[in-house]
Amino acid sequence: MQLYGDERLDYLLTEDMRIIQSPSVFNFSLDAVLLGHFAWVPIQKGNIVDLCTGNAVVPLLLSKKTKGKITGVEIQERLYDMGQRSVEYNGLQDRIELIHGDLKDMPEHFGQHAFEALTCNPPYFQTPKASEKNLNEHLAIARHEIFCTLEDVIRVSSRLVKQGGKAAFVHRPERFLDIVTLMRAYRLEPKRVQFVYPKEGKEANTLLIEGIKDANAGLKILPPLVVYQENNEYTEEMHRILYGE
Amino acid sequence: MQLYGDERLDYLLTEDMRIIQSPSVFNFSLDAVLLGHFAWVPIQKGNIVDLCTGNAVVPLLLSKKTKGKITGVEIQERLYDMGQRSVEYNGLQDRIELIHGDLKDMPEHFGQHAFEALTCNPPYFQTPKASEKNLNEHLAIARHEIFCTLEDVIRVSSRLVKQGGKAAFVHRPERFLDIVTLMRAYRLEPKRVQFVYPKEGKEANTLLIEGIKDANAGLKILPPLVVYQENNEYTEEMHRILYGE
Repeated sequence: MQLYGDERLDYLLTEDMRIIQSPSVFNFSLDAVLLGHFAWVPIQKGNIVDLCTGNAVVPLLLSKKTKGKITGVEIQERLYDMGQRSVEYNGLQDRIELIHGDLKDMPEHFGQHAFEALTCNPPYFQTPKASEKNLNEHLAIARHEIFCTLEDVIRVSSRLVKQGGKAAFVHRPERFLDIVTLMRAYRLEPKRVQFVYPKEGKEANTLLIEGIKDANAGLKILPPLVVYQENNEYTEEMHRILYGE
Repeated sequence: MQLYGDERLDYLLTEDMRIIQSPSVFNFSLDAVLLGHFAWVPIQKGNIVDLCTGNAVVPLLLSKKTKGKITGVEIQERLYDMGQRSVEYNGLQDRIELIHGDLKDMPEHFGQHAFEALTCNPPYFQTPKASEKNLNEHLAIARHEIFCTLEDVIRVSSRLVKQGGKAAFVHRPERFLDIVTLMRAYRLEPKRVQFVYPKEGKEANTLLIEGIKDANAGLKILPPLVVYQENNEYTEEMHRILYGE
């Protein structure tokens, strides 16, 4: 398999999967791992879609949890191409399909309500002034709401999932009120939330949230997840999420 | 001081304050203690109001944190009377004033924007069918939205606090989306949230939230608070909140 520029073929958590990464283009983040762990997926069969899929890290992770068909959508061709090679390297072409395209075109592409489950690790930052933007175009598109806003993500998500289907997102707690307001507006009723804290005694820096299409109200706040111990090593729980038992 | 029926003169946490309680009428809850600990109050001077004050537990607790003037409002005369005697027993008449009245009349009573800080531990449960209601009238009024809804509480709170003033509430996580939606609708921008978990590994069962009148958006999720250890004793942090260092 061909690697380009500063690309590396990294281990994906456990040693039985590999993923192509590149410091100058895209490395997956802890948030993607947390989303893959948090999100519900049908175990035996069903259709799952991951929006803003980047180098396909979430589909690769979800393939460990489901025998269903996983579709990843990525707008940046360079990242799509990295993801495609990773899928092939891991021999998962029959279970993971990547699409190079704009998530906003997907409801038309797939028809409405095509998926049992959806995941998305969207850009976190509202697009700032040009001067503040990340100068690396690939990273800027992944991090800033340049090609899609949070509202785009949630509107499209709601159209893609079936009634009773689940949509899971990872985001920053600062955007929590925006996200729940938009989810309710687009009939993805928030049902499960987990806050992630970098260390004990610190404020949360990551938010995991799952909504169900057209569900009744009723929100559960899951136990907090703390990432690091005082000594900067992963907590036992985080270690388990990253590397299994 | 006169005690009536099954009233007791209990210690309020530390041994230097006492509070009248009655199993058949009203005992303060851990939630009131958590609210008193969580809520911001001006230290040296200022006006603070506590709605749904019950037996005045929150004003008594806040009197340890502020030299300001604290007003408590309670609709049930029996509870107001218990609170009044507790305030007098502790010699706090010059700093705590209790009002027997309906919180919905308070904006007219005080004029608008009279307070730097507000607290409220409102009834948690939307009023159910008569058959499901708590048959004890005093407890039913304290726990069910019989005399005031969550929207009443938040609408009135917004009118009572100054611009930039803070309003803190304790509630159930199931109502989290309702509370933030109402707070935003009434211009109390949610700024600080803390979830309280009964034990490690359990879902949150209590929500503490503070909004600032007409503030900019930007929510912080404080570190989680866990109440009990595995052995059912209070955690170190909870012990500190209850009994000091």
